[in-house]
Amino acid sequence: MIVALAGGVGGAKLAQGLALATPAEELTVLVNTADDFDLYGLRICPDLDTVLYTLAGIANPETGWGIAGDTFSALGAIARLGRDPWFRLGDQDLATHILRTERLRAGVSLTGTIAELAVALGIMSRILPMSDAPVATMVDTPSGQLTFQDYFVARHQQDEVRGVSFAGIDDAEISQPAARALEDADLVIFCPSNPIVSIGPILAVQGMRDALRRATTPKIAVSPIIQGKALKGPADKMLASLGHEVSALGVARIYARLIDGMVLDVRDSGLGASIEALGMRVLCTETIMGDAADRARLAAEVIDFGMSMAQV
Amino acid sequence: MIVALAGGVGGAKLAQGLALATPAEELTVLVNTADDFDLYGLRICPDLDTVLYTLAGIANPETGWGIAGDTFSALGAIARLGRDPWFRLGDQDLATHILRTERLRAGVSLTGTIAELAVALGIMSRILPMSDAPVATMVDTPSGQLTFQDYFVARHQQDEVRGVSFAGIDDAEISQPAARALEDADLVIFCPSNPIVSIGPILAVQGMRDALRRATTPKIAVSPIIQGKALKGPADKMLASLGHEVSALGVARIYARLIDGMVLDVRDSGLGASIEALGMRVLCTETIMGDAADRARLAAEVIDFGMSMAQV
Repeated sequence: MIVALAGGVGGAKLAQGLALATPAEELTVLVNTADDFDLYGLRICPDLDTVLYTLAGIANPETGWGIAGDTFSALGAIARLGRDPWFRLGDQDLATHILRTERLRAGVSLTGTIAELAVALGIMSRILPMSDAPVATMVDTPSGQLTFQDYFVARHQQDEVRGVSFAGIDDAEISQPAARALEDADLVIFCPSNPIVSIGPILAVQGMRDALRRATTPKIAVSPIIQGKALKGPADKMLASLGHEVSALGVARIYARLIDGMVLDVRDSGLGASIEALGMRVLCTETIMGDAADRARLAAEVIDFGMSMAQV
Repeated sequence: MIVALAGGVGGAKLAQGLALATPAEELTVLVNTADDFDLYGLRICPDLDTVLYTLAGIANPETGWGIAGDTFSALGAIARLGRDPWFRLGDQDLATHILRTERLRAGVSLTGTIAELAVALGIMSRILPMSDAPVATMVDTPSGQLTFQDYFVARHQQDEVRGVSFAGIDDAEISQPAARALEDADLVIFCPSNPIVSIGPILAVQGMRDALRRATTPKIAVSPIIQGKALKGPADKMLASLGHEVSALGVARIYARLIDGMVLDVRDSGLGASIEALGMRVLCTETIMGDAADRARLAAEVIDFGMSMAQV
């Protein structure tokens, strides 16, 4: 059993690779929900949906998020009705938000609604929200406290990030299925997602760090930073403005004492010794994931690396 | 000031004609809401939306309902997620349902949400739900009690109608704006809508018949039955199975003591004397409405007919 901690696009790509490289039903993906928000009365879960769509093979390959070939007629009509269409909701994508919102309002847990969506989409792996309680990433900037989507989408990540906090995190407990998945795990993988706002909230959930520490299986992180840059998203800028080194070493320091090994890009092999000095093992390989074959290849290498540590 | 009582497609067509034939801002349309229902957690108001879209000039001219050129991608995705896509919700149409549901959940009245939508769509006339309280038409058939949409859409009006009732009608009061519109009306027009399930629920709202009786202005009905047939919908079959004569005369009998005049199709002029014998005046004219010019022409004739009675 493999448990992967994932945020959005980068995490979803590696999760898809893991589902290809192992029996898919032996994979559980624990997904960040701190980017979730309400829009037009619908509950939007960007990272969960990116993982769902990617594992279902219907994700938009151009953007990484949304559904391939989706259209935007409803959003156009929402704009005609006088509302700001700042968040790109596709027509097919809306179906997910509508049905999820209906089920949540009926009292079904987020874990339950995501399980239903995953089954309907033919996904064999388990996709679990990090918690059933609502958590909201707040970004502290010179313009004030911004919600994550305001910072990330509406304001195009232009604001300097002075701090990040997770509203509601004190009441967000690890769910039973998530706790059980970590108990049963042979390997835990921190996907190449933003360490601050994707993996960060997952680790901040009540009981999550304890569950990770109790799991004696190898824990491996894949660096989302390659040659000082994030492939996607604001991880690099965020790390810098929060005082972290913008490199796989900086990421390794954040995860220190939680992980046993770090996978970094072959272009960053010069950092290997410094990372090993933190007390973890290092694998350098090609970590940029293009197509599904790429993702499966990286996943297989990460699994081999992790399993080799279990045997030591 | 003109007040029109309307259901769906036929009522919306005459309402559009009235908005063209008079200053649009002097028209108030009181609309049936007993077909309203919840689907996928969204509040759907078929008759209100048909009136909105028709007066906004964006209605689908082929069907009479829905939005011209609308697509059905979200509905396809809803089906992919395992839900029955039995009710044709277009992508643009969904925007209306989503934003209405959001506003209703925020505590805004149905009257308020429809006013917001009408303003956003540039409609100068007032569109008012018959009541802010939920009412649901139930159709008694040999297969049991059916909700209206189950009878009408899902089961294609195939069931024999033994009776019709309006759940919630005892708690549904006429809204203040609707009562005031009737007080201020110079003319009240019963549009060519189904007398049983479109005009019927409007008349059954608490306070509606009293408000109509108090209004001393002329009240005119336009027959939805031409040569024994409804142009659209199940009005003819319903009238027959409920024991009414399926003709303009049968409709006039249902509205007797509420209206002062009846407009019937020129093809039914033979019924004129029998309808006059009920104590009302009769206008025979071409009542089939094709394009907007047709609708405005019929509306102008109906207004002239009504106003001529006010002067007597």
